[in-house]
Amino acid sequence: MRKVKVGVAGYGVIGQRLADGVALQGDMELVGVADVAPTLAVMALHEKGMPYRLFTAMPEKAGLLTDKGIPVSGTLEDLVKEVDIMLDATSAGVGAKNKELYQKYGKKAVFQGGEKNSVADVFFHGYANYEKGLGADYLKLTSCNTTGLIRAIDCIDRAVGVQRTAMTIIRRVADPGDYHRGLTNALEVEHAPSHQCLDLMTIMPHIAATGILVHTPVTHGHIITPVVTTKTPVGKDELIEMFRAHPRIRMVRLADGFKGNASLFRYARDLGNPRGDMYEIAVWEESIVKSGDDIMFALNIPQEAVVIPENIDAIRAAMKMQLTREEGTAATNKYLGMKVH
Amino acid sequence: MRKVKVGVAGYGVIGQRLADGVALQGDMELVGVADVAPTLAVMALHEKGMPYRLFTAMPEKAGLLTDKGIPVSGTLEDLVKEVDIMLDATSAGVGAKNKELYQKYGKKAVFQGGEKNSVADVFFHGYANYEKGLGADYLKLTSCNTTGLIRAIDCIDRAVGVQRTAMTIIRRVADPGDYHRGLTNALEVEHAPSHQCLDLMTIMPHIAATGILVHTPVTHGHIITPVVTTKTPVGKDELIEMFRAHPRIRMVRLADGFKGNASLFRYARDLGNPRGDMYEIAVWEESIVKSGDDIMFALNIPQEAVVIPENIDAIRAAMKMQLTREEGTAATNKYLGMKVH
Amino acid sequence: MRKVKVGVAGYGVIGQRLADGVALQGDMELVGVADVAPTLAVMALHEKGMPYRLFTAMPEKAGLLTDKGIPVSGTLEDLVKEVDIMLDATSAGVGAKNKELYQKYGKKAVFQGGEKNSVADVFFHGYANYEKGLGADYLKLTSCNTTGLIRAIDCIDRAVGVQRTAMTIIRRVADPGDYHRGLTNALEVEHAPSHQCLDLMTIMPHIAATGILVHTPVTHGHIITPVVTTKTPVGKDELIEMFRAHPRIRMVRLADGFKGNASLFRYARDLGNPRGDMYEIAVWEESIVKSGDDIMFALNIPQEAVVIPENIDAIRAAMKMQLTREEGTAATNKYLGMKVH
Amino acid sequence: MRKVKVGVAGYGVIGQRLADGVALQGDMELVGVADVAPTLAVMALHEKGMPYRLFTAMPEKAGLLTDKGIPVSGTLEDLVKEVDIMLDATSAGVGAKNKELYQKYGKKAVFQGGEKNSVADVFFHGYANYEKGLGADYLKLTSCNTTGLIRAIDCIDRAVGVQRTAMTIIRRVADPGDYHRGLTNALEVEHAPSHQCLDLMTIMPHIAATGILVHTPVTHGHIITPVVTTKTPVGKDELIEMFRAHPRIRMVRLADGFKGNASLFRYARDLGNPRGDMYEIAVWEESIVKSGDDIMFALNIPQEAVVIPENIDAIRAAMKMQLTREEGTAATNKYLGMKVH
Repeated sequence: MRKVKVGVAGYGVIGQRLADGVALQGDMELVGVADVAPTLAVMALHEKGMPYRLFTAMPEKAGLLTDKGIPVSGTLEDLVKEVDIMLDATSAGVGAKNKELYQKYGKKAVFQGGEKNSVADVFFHGYANYEKGLGADYLKLTSCNTTGLIRAIDCIDRAVGVQRTAMTIIRRVADPGDYHRGLTNALEVEHAPSHQCLDLMTIMPHIAATGILVHTPVTHGHIITPVVTTKTPVGKDELIEMFRAHPRIRMVRLADGFKGNASLFRYARDLGNPRGDMYEIAVWEESIVKSGDDIMFALNIPQEAVVIPENIDAIRAAMKMQLTREEGTAATNKYLGMKVH
Repeated sequence: MRKVKVGVAGYGVIGQRLADGVALQGDMELVGVADVAPTLAVMALHEKGMPYRLFTAMPEKAGLLTDKGIPVSGTLEDLVKEVDIMLDATSAGVGAKNKELYQKYGKKAVFQGGEKNSVADVFFHGYANYEKGLGADYLKLTSCNTTGLIRAIDCIDRAVGVQRTAMTIIRRVADPGDYHRGLTNALEVEHAPSHQCLDLMTIMPHIAATGILVHTPVTHGHIITPVVTTKTPVGKDELIEMFRAHPRIRMVRLADGFKGNASLFRYARDLGNPRGDMYEIAVWEESIVKSGDDIMFALNIPQEAVVIPENIDAIRAAMKMQLTREEGTAATNKYLGMKVH
Repeated sequence: MRKVKVGVAGYGVIGQRLADGVALQGDMELVGVADVAPTLAVMALHEKGMPYRLFTAMPEKAGLLTDKGIPVSGTLEDLVKEVDIMLDATSAGVGAKNKELYQKYGKKAVFQGGEKNSVADVFFHGYANYEKGLGADYLKLTSCNTTGLIRAIDCIDRAVGVQRTAMTIIRRVADPGDYHRGLTNALEVEHAPSHQCLDLMTIMPHIAATGILVHTPVTHGHIITPVVTTKTPVGKDELIEMFRAHPRIRMVRLADGFKGNASLFRYARDLGNPRGDMYEIAVWEESIVKSGDDIMFALNIPQEAVVIPENIDAIRAAMKMQLTREEGTAATNKYLGMKVH
Repeated sequence: MRKVKVGVAGYGVIGQRLADGVALQGDMELVGVADVAPTLAVMALHEKGMPYRLFTAMPEKAGLLTDKGIPVSGTLEDLVKEVDIMLDATSAGVGAKNKELYQKYGKKAVFQGGEKNSVADVFFHGYANYEKGLGADYLKLTSCNTTGLIRAIDCIDRAVGVQRTAMTIIRRVADPGDYHRGLTNALEVEHAPSHQCLDLMTIMPHIAATGILVHTPVTHGHIITPVVTTKTPVGKDELIEMFRAHPRIRMVRLADGFKGNASLFRYARDLGNPRGDMYEIAVWEESIVKSGDDIMFALNIPQEAVVIPENIDAIRAAMKMQLTREEGTAATNKYLGMKVH
């Protein structure tokens, strides 16, 4: 079978990881990546010997790259011509502009959470609404927090039904290496409800979700603590079993030394994962408590890599590579090495 | 009327503020404070010209103080003899030992949250169970988080009845100037349910409380986000009104520039409050959301000073200075300058 | 003798402290402060009962203030008319614009470190070049790091002569309560030499200064570690004595519990200083080392308040209130309560 | 030629990286690693499928490991018997105890910076004193800061001669994932001179070194700013050339986006280095300044991995695999992929 040809626009924190993820898929081919300037990510690509072809998104500024000896394989437009589908991980707003190019050549595209919903036909999540993405031309993925959160809520919902959830999002304020944003010795409260709750309701309209987001001065993963009201009451052991059976959720224990978001970052590095990344969300066993019939727990969102699997699911749905949620996500999981622990 | 004579044991973060708070009460007299070593707090007392008499808690080590030229007015035992009641703000565990001394002289005492419940006859909160403290010999105060939390929950409970609450405690991990504890670029999850929830249930046994605590690397105030199930549903405007009418709760707005815990710290400094302290908890107007009939909001706990008013309430109850919650807390509030904003 | 009438433009971190500092001077009168919007600082002024009259710097937006019930006593122009001299602590660049107003009414003004040097006739430091400011119309103060640094270097220079200095500036990246800037888990290196070294050389042209500045994610004070080459070699004890004799330098000891910048912040709060501020720089005794004939030490800059004394010195020089450096700084020190410790 | 057989005791932050580093050497064989408990590092080893054999350092507690299904290949003593040389990366003090075991079997060992100097015959640095380690039985490596610092100082010393250096060490206070130590919103000053300067002088007794160390609340690399007095004055361009020619020093530019220690961590992750590690120290081009004839610059120490190359050099020296500094370090560099950039 012919491999699906994929291009990545925007080679930043997400774009790099999308490219790596696609490159791991046995049934896809990464044609190349596009960016504008010799960022650290592009310089690292160069130092590694250009494992991926680089296209310039601003042909008039190609000199920025070539002046540093970084080989350029063509323009973003050249890349678009070669692919079946684009993953657009450019800065918020740029994707909408790029869409014109994708439309010009009749190519499908997957946009990230920063773009407006209107850029896409379907607001997509691999586990929650795979089938909605089947054959779609333009899909938008949920942001990192929402992607991870929906994994957990969808997992409970399919088992016992979820009516509503009220959550606290303890957000990491920057990624490791970010110098353009930051917070120093301060917690910052956002206007509630946070957009993640609204996004969850767009994807899962049968659930009422609300919550408060608080930014914290750390870089290694968000922690969300949802209080979940289920249709059938669910116990702690039952919840653990559900989550354990999910290939994109990792149950961890404080008693084992997983003390917080930074432990998971360290563990992923020690696993030898590329960039020390983790695709799975994690749930702390000792955090699970009951409040009346509701259940509450703490989950960790590795913000840099968590959206990669669902992005690849989106390619599978859009290209009709697999026609069901089960087959689509299973294929992604297989190639990414995600399995039940 | 004779002023009630009060001593403070332990002149640390809490002890200093207890002394200042007592000194402001028109119907109390601060006899003195006791400590062991020339800590920064004691050195500052000295540099200020000894506004409070200092007693040594370890007579055999008084030289530590006098060698630095810090005048010592006697021993802790001397202090105990002079007072009607002691506020014990020593390190966890020391209070239990000091209790023998208090008993020896038949003096009442108020212990802090770090001591075991068994040290006291009553686990006390000025607003939630003032009457239980009336005439009691040994009272233990709730810790900073629990003290502030109970203010809010008790306020709602008296208005519309609270059935249960599930909360997230985003805890500041150290105080400004702490070098003996800290966290760097990490969130730390605690075993749930957190002790604050258990303590709340001890004080308010008719409410079911649970929750998850996450430590964060900041120093200027905890933020708690309780989801509250009330007997009668309560709306956002109603909640704002309730909290506005409470002299120890301050309603604040993101729109006014109160962006998080650090804004409140800055504001208290700009108010000219001693040490930049704030006695009130704060609730962000824009954080209030409804989840079904439940209500959720974000509140700020200024951990260094929040327990001072309730400690002074405890003196009033133990000494029967005022016989009702309303009168007792009103007297404290008057002398501390706490009023409805 | 008639008191000198002073106005303050810009009621932010520095402006508030300038107003407080002027209000303490027995021979000055604080006429009022000017600002634009109901910032937290202005709201705190209001909550305190308007101890200072407030003027609006943008008459067309006075409604921003009055709508919140904050009384406005007139415009910035009205304020300028009433004063002898303005302290301009507005955001960088605004001072240059305000200067037109000051010129229109023939009023002197003192600008802060953020303005360009060209705004002023004299780049001023109370201890290093007081006499240059005598009678000057427009003075610019050094920034916080430079002000504190020059205190130390000038002190050594007058005693034994300084030839050159190479320093490392470990800079706090934001003030407590800042949400508009920050750094999270990162050190940031600046292009060397840092502007502080260049500024030092402008004020003290006989000294060669260079150095590297590194931003750190903390809020409680910069730490500078200059390596100083003196004309006559100076020993550790000698240096301690020099600094001890300086009313704006505080010698502290690690052994006493002054472990870093946060200890000094805590100590200033415990001293009961307004806003927990400290005017003095501090030098750690145990940090002093010799490198050949050079001497090296670590000094702490309390960035929010350190420039206040030298600003007041500037008023004294510009208004010829005292004609010598010794008399001018002594008057400032007396009213601010700064003394040899 | 027979490969040299190496064992690693202590599979923590350093031990893991030593094992990985040895495994990359074509002329060495990693026999196995020893540890005590199922730490995160050991659990990751298990999850990866035990690429290295694990030996228990406390046979009586082997159950801690086997109860979790982690296969144990024997005891530390068994490991020692099988190897030619041990790398001991246990906690400070344990190495001295382990030495008895190494002596019992007549095996050589390399200890880390945390051990006392007396544990070893030679205090070793691959570039500074390789020949001293030739055939030695017990070597101790310098700590992370000192190892990186000596690379730079030795490089200058061999080119133009170094007389003395006065440095500021801006130290990261914890590693990513550390929960047992930390600092929150505080800089901490150490008693000067710091041990790194003393260690440098032990290795390079002809140089006078001193300096001040300040701890900062970050995790991604120390930054050192030495002021270096050379025998022959050295210019900025010359220094850049020297450092560029050193395979363990990387020259970087602020202008390229390397803004601080966190940029280097990000870049190493983007390079795909295992664990996102970097073996090289980095020097910022724009940080280099002249102070009279002295030269000053800022260098970055990636504290988790920087000592690995010099540890492997130590094996080469102790086992006389290569007889000169040039050949020994060149072999290490080749297998670690370190080259002039």
